[in-house]
Amino acid sequence: MPEFFNVLAPEEAFEVLRKHLSVRVESERVPTSKALGRVTAREIRSTEDLPPFPRSTMDGYSVRAADTFGATEGLPAYLELAGVVPMGAATEVSLGPGEAAVTFTGGMLADGADAVVMEEYTQHAGGVTVEVLRPVAPGENVLQVGEDVREGNDVLPAGHVIRPQDIGGLMALGITEIEVARRPVVAIVSTGDELVPPIETPGAGQVRDINTYTISALVEKHGGVPVPVALVEDDYEAQREAAVDALEQGDVLVFSAGSSISSRDLTASVIDSLGSPGVLVHGISLKPGKPTIVALIDGKPAFGLPGNPVSAMVVFNLLVRPTLYLLAGCENPPGPATLTARLARDVASVAGREDHVQVRLNGTENRRPTAEPVFGKSNLIYSLVRADGTIIVPLDKAGLYAGENVEVKLF
Amino acid sequence: MPEFFNVLAPEEAFEVLRKHLSVRVESERVPTSKALGRVTAREIRSTEDLPPFPRSTMDGYSVRAADTFGATEGLPAYLELAGVVPMGAATEVSLGPGEAAVTFTGGMLADGADAVVMEEYTQHAGGVTVEVLRPVAPGENVLQVGEDVREGNDVLPAGHVIRPQDIGGLMALGITEIEVARRPVVAIVSTGDELVPPIETPGAGQVRDINTYTISALVEKHGGVPVPVALVEDDYEAQREAAVDALEQGDVLVFSAGSSISSRDLTASVIDSLGSPGVLVHGISLKPGKPTIVALIDGKPAFGLPGNPVSAMVVFNLLVRPTLYLLAGCENPPGPATLTARLARDVASVAGREDHVQVRLNGTENRRPTAEPVFGKSNLIYSLVRADGTIIVPLDKAGLYAGENVEVKLF
Repeated sequence: MPEFFNVLAPEEAFEVLRKHLSVRVESERVPTSKALGRVTAREIRSTEDLPPFPRSTMDGYSVRAADTFGATEGLPAYLELAGVVPMGAATEVSLGPGEAAVTFTGGMLADGADAVVMEEYTQHAGGVTVEVLRPVAPGENVLQVGEDVREGNDVLPAGHVIRPQDIGGLMALGITEIEVARRPVVAIVSTGDELVPPIETPGAGQVRDINTYTISALVEKHGGVPVPVALVEDDYEAQREAAVDALEQGDVLVFSAGSSISSRDLTASVIDSLGSPGVLVHGISLKPGKPTIVALIDGKPAFGLPGNPVSAMVVFNLLVRPTLYLLAGCENPPGPATLTARLARDVASVAGREDHVQVRLNGTENRRPTAEPVFGKSNLIYSLVRADGTIIVPLDKAGLYAGENVEVKLF
Repeated sequence: MPEFFNVLAPEEAFEVLRKHLSVRVESERVPTSKALGRVTAREIRSTEDLPPFPRSTMDGYSVRAADTFGATEGLPAYLELAGVVPMGAATEVSLGPGEAAVTFTGGMLADGADAVVMEEYTQHAGGVTVEVLRPVAPGENVLQVGEDVREGNDVLPAGHVIRPQDIGGLMALGITEIEVARRPVVAIVSTGDELVPPIETPGAGQVRDINTYTISALVEKHGGVPVPVALVEDDYEAQREAAVDALEQGDVLVFSAGSSISSRDLTASVIDSLGSPGVLVHGISLKPGKPTIVALIDGKPAFGLPGNPVSAMVVFNLLVRPTLYLLAGCENPPGPATLTARLARDVASVAGREDHVQVRLNGTENRRPTAEPVFGKSNLIYSLVRADGTIIVPLDKAGLYAGENVEVKLF
């Protein structure tokens, strides 16, 4: 593996960046109802018990459980109806021994009651007597005060990506605003003499810029704010000017470098010139994605992604994605979702290199989906469009065999 | 299973709705760069070949492959340097026999060339002679015209949820605007005498409304526009007024019903009064989520979700989620992502009922994550907050055993 002698493994590359990066999470206050997908900036603690009163989980009767012990269909317990506990209001019924009160699902128990008998297990012919046909234990069909959450409990840790149920849980406690990490702003510079904006018709030898848009969408998907700064030719001064502008606007700088060796080297020297410590990693043992640059510029992470669209996306997911979450204080971001599939055909690799291979899921065999590799040069954006996910041939393997179980990282 | 005698299985309930629903996808035009997560309203076809010219995948020399046949390090092929093909411009070099031209990765081939020799396999001491040390086959290191996509190819089908790479693929073809399905508007009415808005401090017997917010976030997550219409008490006229208002505003109506039998029945009669054909399904063989209402009101789907927050979320994912995608023309929506885990303990169920059990993923054993059931009454929103996903005990099973492999549907 002489080709990869001087480059780092993908995990090592990320670790180098992580070690150099000192994260200070900047937070902002947002309404909880608008916080889906945001990252908590600090842990959130409950300031009350939930539920705040003992609630019935059934329609039926509040009772003292002891009054029902031994009750059967043949020999019911006869209780005296003391009243009705209305929904949404304080109970005004206080149960004495041998008494019951009509109680609704979600409603409060009558004062003095410690259980609820389901309506199905009672008979009430009108009047003041209720026949209870089965015994209940103390606490049966009751949500106790604080059973969902206790006052003072940590309900969400810092660095947590908010899901729909988290919003519900916070609202239940009256936490209608929370501190979340400010979204990291990612400034994107695309480079290459051959590139034109997608709106233009390319002339001879020209192609449209793709990476600005793929990277922007990936940033958006992972909670960042993409700012496309410039599309610049392979010229040192032009690139440096765009990079300085990008660093002013962004918390992270992403360069989509040209594909030729000379334009990659140009990008590397531009990035290295921007600040300290500069380029940390130049080249990783990854296919596609070897010519990747990882840098730190006066505290801001900067990446030089390869110009090939497939490589750019692979490297984004491997390095930029976790960096965005890291900047928001999230060490263990959710996903990507994975799925176990049966590999449809052999995939060759080279030991000492991590290969990321696009796969398409094609039907199932023995209840396991089949992963069909989408072979294609890393210049082909449609090899990503036609794929459902990625499999990884690890550094220490020279390939994978048809029929093996593989973990597919879904897009 | 007499309890579930009169109710439909979850899949049947959805099928009943699907059969009654006639979907007309309304579309709108959006910039492709803003289309992440939107659903294509019609299939999208390429109007050009990609790449539009033969591109080199390497830095090196454009050659006629035949001129290199038989070349070795000991006996190189000697070619005459005819010029340089610049990046981003038409080639002005036309190769005659025995000629080569400097060519860059991503650049055009010289006219007359049919392959590229990598720079590594050449020697060029300056002057006009290039030594080629290895032969190349015709087409080697070249992306052919249309190799990524051909003019006239369908690049995305209708009903496809747009991912980052799809945006890149469209931009590459100059498709900078696309027709997507209008986002379905979901009008939400929450009901219950015991509910107060989260901003208020609940009085005795009162709790805060959760479902409006959980449902709104779920709608947002799945590409719809949530419109919280009202929080109303258990009163027929008040609920009907809110429902009429909601139907005017939304493409879909979601009622979060009260939990008691009487308030559920009230919601059912309100929904049934709104239009034709009215309630299609009342009750499904599901836990939690049995007291679910599925209706169609003059062409608009309407759902009565159970008041318990866990039930509401389970039923949303099972019925409302696919309905939102269906309205956008997407028959097979992506996800939820699943993951195979080892069940940490027995889960009891009842044959004839589909049980959805929340689980938390706890570490791994033999490289498989462990799924720990988060037992808790369906009134406990924090049983969802503490969970990472859901497992299903199918209708025909009476439970699952510790140690079984289970598919976890991740949140």
